[in-house]
Amino acid sequence: MAEGCNPTKSSCDVQQNPEQDVGLGRLRQDLAEFARERDWEQFHSPRNLLLALMGEMGELSELFMWKGEVQRGLPTFTPAEKEHCAEELSDVLLYLCRLADICDIDLGAAALAKMKKNALKYPADKCRGSSAKAYTYASGQS
Amino acid sequence: MAEGCNPTKSSCDVQQNPEQDVGLGRLRQDLAEFARERDWEQFHSPRNLLLALMGEMGELSELFMWKGEVQRGLPTFTPAEKEHCAEELSDVLLYLCRLADICDIDLGAAALAKMKKNALKYPADKCRGSSAKAYTYASGQS
Amino acid sequence: MAEGCNPTKSSCDVQQNPEQDVGLGRLRQDLAEFARERDWEQFHSPRNLLLALMGEMGELSELFMWKGEVQRGLPTFTPAEKEHCAEELSDVLLYLCRLADICDIDLGAAALAKMKKNALKYPADKCRGSSAKAYTYASGQS
Amino acid sequence: MAEGCNPTKSSCDVQQNPEQDVGLGRLRQDLAEFARERDWEQFHSPRNLLLALMGEMGELSELFMWKGEVQRGLPTFTPAEKEHCAEELSDVLLYLCRLADICDIDLGAAALAKMKKNALKYPADKCRGSSAKAYTYASGQS
Repeated sequence: MAEGCNPTKSSCDVQQNPEQDVGLGRLRQDLAEFARERDWEQFHSPRNLLLALMGEMGELSELFMWKGEVQRGLPTFTPAEKEHCAEELSDVLLYLCRLADICDIDLGAAALAKMKKNALKYPADKCRGSSAKAYTYASGQS
Repeated sequence: MAEGCNPTKSSCDVQQNPEQDVGLGRLRQDLAEFARERDWEQFHSPRNLLLALMGEMGELSELFMWKGEVQRGLPTFTPAEKEHCAEELSDVLLYLCRLADICDIDLGAAALAKMKKNALKYPADKCRGSSAKAYTYASGQS
Repeated sequence: MAEGCNPTKSSCDVQQNPEQDVGLGRLRQDLAEFARERDWEQFHSPRNLLLALMGEMGELSELFMWKGEVQRGLPTFTPAEKEHCAEELSDVLLYLCRLADICDIDLGAAALAKMKKNALKYPADKCRGSSAKAYTYASGQS
Repeated sequence: MAEGCNPTKSSCDVQQNPEQDVGLGRLRQDLAEFARERDWEQFHSPRNLLLALMGEMGELSELFMWKGEVQRGLPTFTPAEKEHCAEELSDVLLYLCRLADICDIDLGAAALAKMKKNALKYPADKCRGSSAKAYTYASGQS
């Protein structure tokens, strides 16, 4: 990703530069190196990372807590708030990638496998517009 | 990712096939298409997705709740539990990607920007082995 | 609380029976006895309980995830959904009480102390109608 | 609760002063008055409060994130950390009480009803020492 690239999509949509799509394997490697360089591997046990991830989820939640319903694209957020949201989403992602790595799970492969499973479990023609199906999809109930 | 690929790293490490690194932009596109095909876009407002993400975080937490301290690689998990963990990590990732997309935030670019910011804020030579620095890193305090 | 008492307020408002106000100390005792009778104390370490609490928070979140904005009193919830919500709120409360007990913290006393602190930090006449003050109140920033 | 009462149990155990047991109905009333005095009721919709509650859960998680396994009574916490833990547990409780009130649910009655239900569902003599039963208890699976 080019220097100075804005984390909102308008300025550098990855769609237009597919070869620059940020990969989960690359993030995994960078995070492992970041921890190793700081000797922070000693703190990165699965449950420690899970609780750190929860901390970031809480910070993300705080950005939305007094907003009432928010529309797509966050039109009621100031630019600073939107930037903050990009940072909190990133923090969640980075701890998630690190947690998966420490659990010895290939997150990219797992995500693709889960999407394939979801596509089989929720065929488009039987689920169209159904909030009930969306609910069972999200809650993991069968 | 090849058919039948196991989501644990041993069988198909993305490191050995860097061209297959699963990209966040690709996941974003696939998830958008998945929602569109099922007419589920109507449910995917930012706060709806944030709460769905929280639901998945809860399911992930349940896998670790009665385990006591868990070591790297999840040696005390059964294969079924580890597979379940891969699925829950994936669910968190997929809702996170979808939430970022609906917020009009490029998650990959945001993650790279945050990692660069973290590297500047926490220089390796000043943070080595410090849990206090790791704490402020994780809690966002300065 | 009388047998068959409905957990919605209409049928047995504690206001009208102040002597029946359910106390946190009583819940603490009942939960300790419940765990002891089942020999579940061995599972109730602080971090185990914290993750179980997170699991319940996730289940609570799922009840609200596809609802869009919800008004006070949950007018769009079915009676079954409202009952389910009462159960999930209870689950969060019960694990919270148990966690506090295991941490050797008197939750009732701590809550009163925190309310007194909040009243001093956020004087009514300086905070009236301010979402900014409500934000710092909720996010713990000063 | 007497002035200057320490939120750890040693100094003023509610057990020894049962008439001082802090009630959920009392907290509900105090919180309602607190919001009314500050004209903050406008911010207290169910989903706003749910996200604020999530924010507090995140802050609670951060206190435990780099600790590794923590024993009962938090022996490895400094007094300041234990005090901080008491405050975060309180914040979770206060938002939970407020959320229940806004949902028009009597949290105390609901909690007693849930404990009765749990006692029937998990008879002591059939669940003794079983982590599997404790898991289904906590995860709500049947």
